[in-house]
Amino acid sequence: MTRGKFITFEGGEGTGKSTQCQLLAEYLRLKGRDVIITREPGGTDGAELIRALLVSGDVNRWSGVTEALLLNAARVDHWEKVISPALATGTWVICDRFADSTIAYQGYGRGLDVTFLKNLHESVLPNVWPDLTYIFDLDPKIGIARALSRRTSEVRFEKLEIDFHNRMRTGYLDIAKTFPERCRLIDANQDIETVHRQIVRELD
Amino acid sequence: MTRGKFITFEGGEGTGKSTQCQLLAEYLRLKGRDVIITREPGGTDGAELIRALLVSGDVNRWSGVTEALLLNAARVDHWEKVISPALATGTWVICDRFADSTIAYQGYGRGLDVTFLKNLHESVLPNVWPDLTYIFDLDPKIGIARALSRRTSEVRFEKLEIDFHNRMRTGYLDIAKTFPERCRLIDANQDIETVHRQIVRELD
Repeated sequence: MTRGKFITFEGGEGTGKSTQCQLLAEYLRLKGRDVIITREPGGTDGAELIRALLVSGDVNRWSGVTEALLLNAARVDHWEKVISPALATGTWVICDRFADSTIAYQGYGRGLDVTFLKNLHESVLPNVWPDLTYIFDLDPKIGIARALSRRTSEVRFEKLEIDFHNRMRTGYLDIAKTFPERCRLIDANQDIETVHRQIVRELD
Repeated sequence: MTRGKFITFEGGEGTGKSTQCQLLAEYLRLKGRDVIITREPGGTDGAELIRALLVSGDVNRWSGVTEALLLNAARVDHWEKVISPALATGTWVICDRFADSTIAYQGYGRGLDVTFLKNLHESVLPNVWPDLTYIFDLDPKIGIARALSRRTSEVRFEKLEIDFHNRMRTGYLDIAKTFPERCRLIDANQDIETVHRQIVRELD
């Protein structure tokens, strides 16, 4: 049994990741792959409950450290119950956000020490990184406006000041530069079909 | 302003910790101290929501690693918002469970590496340990029976097999031996008044 591939989509709010996850899954299924789409924080019953604590409510309800611990708790649950078993049976896993989000949001955005965050990840999920990561890059002003126009209650992160989102964008660009073998930078300020074609090209 | 003292109560389920927290607080207030009683997991609005995820529901809903992360998330929130500010203003803090519980339950009980748990604690709450810790020792068979007789839904840990609770008891005895300057072992198989007198004696 060949192990499945683990593909993650990363980037700021409103960059079109979820749509592209769906389009890539359809493409891969047409190619005969078993594919699941999942998301973080969330993806299991337990992790969705943790998600609810994170993405709604007052902006200041948790400190950056508490957020990082909650995100890692949700991620471990998700990895143990969904992602790892799927990959083991040859299923490809497309995940909307993964560990890079915590580096970008809580590290660059909130200002937590990135080494602390990487050590935390390695201590609970040693050597667990995606095979391929698409990083969607977009001016946060455009992304936040898009995100706020479509959502109702999951806006805790969208409500953070624009500087937070700009720092986060810088974080993603740094991640793309630091891990060029795994990461592909995507200009998210293009139409859906153009972005999809680029994603498929990078995959093949 | 003299910093307050941080006193924790530790031990298995149904060992009488909560009652003794109350009695010690009354004693200290009579002595003129400002005292708050709090508990873990919990003690803040956010941490109580995390507590609800941990102490109810199916025994197997979380792995040991996920539990450890959730417990540390709740602890950081509790420390930042309640314990640390209280101590800074000279208030004494009596806490029903703290970091030793995670070592005993998730380490000795669930079999997680104790060094991983200590490193996790030190990475999020560096040098944060109680000034004094009472460790309540009791045969788990007696404690679990007591705990199950009084509770309704918070029984997720009580439902774990007796071997889990026996390993946890060993863990607490090891902690008491390893940190003799901070920890006082209490024989919890005595009447409430006798235990209270011992607690006050150890304090003075």
